[in-house]
Amino acid sequence: MNILVTNDDGYSAPGLLILKQALEKIGTVVVVAPDQNWSAGGHVKTLHKPLRLSKVQLADGSDAYASSGAPSDCVSLVLLGAIDFKPDLIVSGINPFANLSHDVTYSGTVTAAMEGALSGIPSIAVSVENADADPDAYEHAAAFAAHLVPIVLERGLAREVLLNVNVPVGPIKGVQITRMGQRVYNDKLDARIDPRGRPYYWIGGTVPTGIPDDGTDVGALHNGYISVTPIQMDMTAYRFQEALKGWELSA
Amino acid sequence: MNILVTNDDGYSAPGLLILKQALEKIGTVVVVAPDQNWSAGGHVKTLHKPLRLSKVQLADGSDAYASSGAPSDCVSLVLLGAIDFKPDLIVSGINPFANLSHDVTYSGTVTAAMEGALSGIPSIAVSVENADADPDAYEHAAAFAAHLVPIVLERGLAREVLLNVNVPVGPIKGVQITRMGQRVYNDKLDARIDPRGRPYYWIGGTVPTGIPDDGTDVGALHNGYISVTPIQMDMTAYRFQEALKGWELSA
Repeated sequence: MNILVTNDDGYSAPGLLILKQALEKIGTVVVVAPDQNWSAGGHVKTLHKPLRLSKVQLADGSDAYASSGAPSDCVSLVLLGAIDFKPDLIVSGINPFANLSHDVTYSGTVTAAMEGALSGIPSIAVSVENADADPDAYEHAAAFAAHLVPIVLERGLAREVLLNVNVPVGPIKGVQITRMGQRVYNDKLDARIDPRGRPYYWIGGTVPTGIPDDGTDVGALHNGYISVTPIQMDMTAYRFQEALKGWELSA
Repeated sequence: MNILVTNDDGYSAPGLLILKQALEKIGTVVVVAPDQNWSAGGHVKTLHKPLRLSKVQLADGSDAYASSGAPSDCVSLVLLGAIDFKPDLIVSGINPFANLSHDVTYSGTVTAAMEGALSGIPSIAVSVENADADPDAYEHAAAFAAHLVPIVLERGLAREVLLNVNVPVGPIKGVQITRMGQRVYNDKLDARIDPRGRPYYWIGGTVPTGIPDDGTDVGALHNGYISVTPIQMDMTAYRFQEALKGWELSA
């Protein structure tokens, strides 16, 4: 079983190494990860510049590849044949903070899994609620990933569906299959003046919160459960199509 | 009526100016667009570095703002109050090439509209099939946008739903309400060696094609119709949830 591991925090991130070590017990793992942090970097296909791919060493001395591209570019490079490795499954993570609800389109962790899903490779994104708040967070998430991967390979995922996994701060009560809940972004503009008198802007504020409704990813984490959300790449708003058909759109 | 216009090709792109001029006839238009090309740049929220926002002039001498951020950052900056303008509606485009099917999560044009939709502002992404193949492409698309905007403001969109509009190479037969169809990406790896003997990689190949099924965005364009696809931000794979609930996921 060939498992491609990537992430959005870069190849030296601790969550990546722990994930890789856990998955090595069940298959052949190759790591291809960005050479820098791509958090909230979105679903990227780098077309306007070339990409580098370099051999690097992880903290345990093992070999890996670092790419100058985004997480989704890392997946593309492998699937297009930049290295001699054909993954049966892709696992992206472990992200140190949750990727819930509308985080999915921003998240490098999840968009790497989207790239896999669009190419027909079963793909899983794994994040912990807060790695700073729980010293065992990564170990819990890595153990769950190692449990989940063989099941996914045996059962298969639906076409163009990926799994978005989030693991709460412990103790963990169980696993819930969830839907995307409601994220609340608490961004505030932080306008500053540089030493040359010119304005610049940080997207600041506090970390996103959410509405912990039952059955949602936000709710599962809030209540101490691992959240597994199946995410599909078809974003058509089918219910709204009928309303639109009543509009006078022909000019 | 306050209309924010943005794009992913940068503030100097011809499609942006034509869109802006068409929408000025129906409302107050402010342009905030990237200072560079962000095609296939994804849904970005720039948090790790500050953003610039500069006054620039468009080719017709009118004022606009250019940002160092992604298209979605341009929308964020406005919605967070970087300038004194509260948009009633956001229009992103006109992109010189189609944004169909799975292009939506990559596309800067569409992800700018996603940013608006997530903040509750009605948002529309507008692309033409191929600006190079039809000298009237932008005019057709701008005219349709000017027709659509007042209807959207009167009727409203569903919560967290945006409209993804694609306009075919003329003549135009009409308008179809569509679902996301099937894109076929024809990416090929183009591996090269730099002057210092080190490898680098282009994601090359030919432009994406698609399967022109009836009822889809790909099919509408193929048959000469303007495609209007309602896109929702809830990506939960509801149908696959039941299958997942049958899996033994508790470790």
